[in-house]
Amino acid sequence: MTNQDEFKRIAGQLIAAGRFIDSKGWVPATSGNFSVRLSDGRIAITVSGKHKGQLETEDIMLVDGDGQSLDGKKPSAETLLHTSLYQRFPDVQAVLHPHSLHATLAARLFKDEMVLEDYELLKALSDIDTHQSRIVIPIFANDQNIRRLAAVVKNYLDHHDAIHAYIIAGHGFYTWGRSLEEALRHLEALEFLFECEIRLHGVKK
Amino acid sequence: MTNQDEFKRIAGQLIAAGRFIDSKGWVPATSGNFSVRLSDGRIAITVSGKHKGQLETEDIMLVDGDGQSLDGKKPSAETLLHTSLYQRFPDVQAVLHPHSLHATLAARLFKDEMVLEDYELLKALSDIDTHQSRIVIPIFANDQNIRRLAAVVKNYLDHHDAIHAYIIAGHGFYTWGRSLEEALRHLEALEFLFECEIRLHGVKK
Amino acid sequence: MTNQDEFKRIAGQLIAAGRFIDSKGWVPATSGNFSVRLSDGRIAITVSGKHKGQLETEDIMLVDGDGQSLDGKKPSAETLLHTSLYQRFPDVQAVLHPHSLHATLAARLFKDEMVLEDYELLKALSDIDTHQSRIVIPIFANDQNIRRLAAVVKNYLDHHDAIHAYIIAGHGFYTWGRSLEEALRHLEALEFLFECEIRLHGVKK
Amino acid sequence: MTNQDEFKRIAGQLIAAGRFIDSKGWVPATSGNFSVRLSDGRIAITVSGKHKGQLETEDIMLVDGDGQSLDGKKPSAETLLHTSLYQRFPDVQAVLHPHSLHATLAARLFKDEMVLEDYELLKALSDIDTHQSRIVIPIFANDQNIRRLAAVVKNYLDHHDAIHAYIIAGHGFYTWGRSLEEALRHLEALEFLFECEIRLHGVKK
Repeated sequence: MTNQDEFKRIAGQLIAAGRFIDSKGWVPATSGNFSVRLSDGRIAITVSGKHKGQLETEDIMLVDGDGQSLDGKKPSAETLLHTSLYQRFPDVQAVLHPHSLHATLAARLFKDEMVLEDYELLKALSDIDTHQSRIVIPIFANDQNIRRLAAVVKNYLDHHDAIHAYIIAGHGFYTWGRSLEEALRHLEALEFLFECEIRLHGVKK
Repeated sequence: MTNQDEFKRIAGQLIAAGRFIDSKGWVPATSGNFSVRLSDGRIAITVSGKHKGQLETEDIMLVDGDGQSLDGKKPSAETLLHTSLYQRFPDVQAVLHPHSLHATLAARLFKDEMVLEDYELLKALSDIDTHQSRIVIPIFANDQNIRRLAAVVKNYLDHHDAIHAYIIAGHGFYTWGRSLEEALRHLEALEFLFECEIRLHGVKK
Repeated sequence: MTNQDEFKRIAGQLIAAGRFIDSKGWVPATSGNFSVRLSDGRIAITVSGKHKGQLETEDIMLVDGDGQSLDGKKPSAETLLHTSLYQRFPDVQAVLHPHSLHATLAARLFKDEMVLEDYELLKALSDIDTHQSRIVIPIFANDQNIRRLAAVVKNYLDHHDAIHAYIIAGHGFYTWGRSLEEALRHLEALEFLFECEIRLHGVKK
Repeated sequence: MTNQDEFKRIAGQLIAAGRFIDSKGWVPATSGNFSVRLSDGRIAITVSGKHKGQLETEDIMLVDGDGQSLDGKKPSAETLLHTSLYQRFPDVQAVLHPHSLHATLAARLFKDEMVLEDYELLKALSDIDTHQSRIVIPIFANDQNIRRLAAVVKNYLDHHDAIHAYIIAGHGFYTWGRSLEEALRHLEALEFLFECEIRLHGVKK
């Protein structure tokens, strides 16, 4: 398959992923962005400012591994958060940034992290094989300086065990996977678990 | 393009907007109304009493800049709230009045205004470029006398900085934009932010 | 139009109403029932035990004004609640009995009635033209003896002003209208208002 | 009808059931599994690891009455919970295991069981003919050792009256029926009732 064929195929998958994610209400207005790494290392990523439930092929652009535009289109300011993940994790092939209500509320209700324990659905996360796991989702302060925010994420990853996702306060979350399918499975499972934790927050058990 | 062509195109966009807004549950029963300003200054607006998820071309009418019917159809009682916005803001081309649950609850839980701060999604509002903004959404008392209600809105606008929307207590909200697309983006973002604030209301953080 | 043509048209409308009501989640499992009065006084009503989101023409039957089957099909046990309303209100042409979550919760949270005030959406109810109305929705205890339950409803109606709907505890609600369209508008508006009241119940304002 | 025809028909019904259940949000990520007993005693069941809203015929496999694969495909680890139910209840023809938010929350809010009383919708459960019934849904601790978990369920069933469903903590619930249609009716009714109980939990009545 030529590079161009691969790009078209991936763009179609990102468009379909956007429709699915929007149907759940997880990318309101023009929020969110999604990417997939191509076999030659370039990254297909959604452009800035489009509604993610109404993407067209021209709304998917190509950047290099450092986030520089390869086709003249304007990448989202947050492209650097995608490329940082690809640089750190060689087996990651897809990164999703939804902007869901529950991730937004999470950062208001929990301080520095959410802890997910004793949920069977944790097994939907890669390399987790029992509900008796303790999964930490760090919450980082929002920052319009994406380079500085990326450095905060990098510093966290340097000093902690592998994570499956992180939340940016008031700004949704990032998750990723070894395929777009796996990243979507992570997204759907985490959104469910975030909602569980938020519904249980403050409830007398 | 002739005026008639433009009207038909705009009517189609309003019908599609109505289906989208209704699919979210934001215009229950026959509530809500929507309008777009045509290039010659006339305003295409939904007629009174129709379900906004089931609009047909004949349910879109034309009024002049003062809200007088230009085609014999009966305008909604609230047409004056639309024309007031077009008169004040020359660059506004679309006004949307959804009647959502969260806007309705907002007026019961917050007194005179909602304050939205520290949300990335604020950047979906026009001319906002950081989550570190403080956005005020005023809440006005409901009034069946629309002329009096319009005067209250006018008085507020005369004495405050520009706003992106206002809530009428027990009666949904108004938002607008330099295009129908922008007004829809404002609607979707504000509804998300209203839900965040309502979910956080009274929660021990 | 022949009687048979009218029945087929009405059956089609009831099937479409069922799909709409089910799409909102207001008739879970095989709950709920709907009817329309034909021009000759017979009543088209959903049969017992079918899923209201998946109705077919054969799931709509005919009863006379007293609820006796006219076509050998088995009417729902609650048919008498429909025919009682048609007998009392000569201008009522449609009765809807959804079984929504909010109506079910309402009966647990409020004692004998719900009071709806200061909502613009009250104007979606027939003969209401201002939000400054006070609408009472009585809540009756559930009873498997439908004849006895119908007598309780009749007694209430004999001694109170006209109402737009009533709730049966743990059993959804009944609403009606001068057309199926009006009954659907009542249903959608009341469900919205019930949700408002339930969301506000116990919230510190 | 040949066995192969029956299998194809049943597989189609399981695929449709999966789409319906997923449309409600009750099988997030790749959670949940469903089965139907064929007329010759073999069991058609969803394979491990697929999204239940996107099932294809190849995702439905055949196991014998003890849960052993009959076609070389890998059965879900939880197959034993299905076959245990078929062994105990000769008239059960379908078993559904959704993984809904409300079932997941239920196990956190209620200790050993949920009690459902005074709901008309209890009549959607087989052999229940009045809302004045008291239905107990036991909650079992989650366990990655499915054989041990199946033994706990068996022990409970040996010492209690017949039940319509059971919850596994943090892991959704199991329900069943004399047909797939009945099992789906049970699922829809129970999910509604679980949501009622959870919404009422901790609310001052």
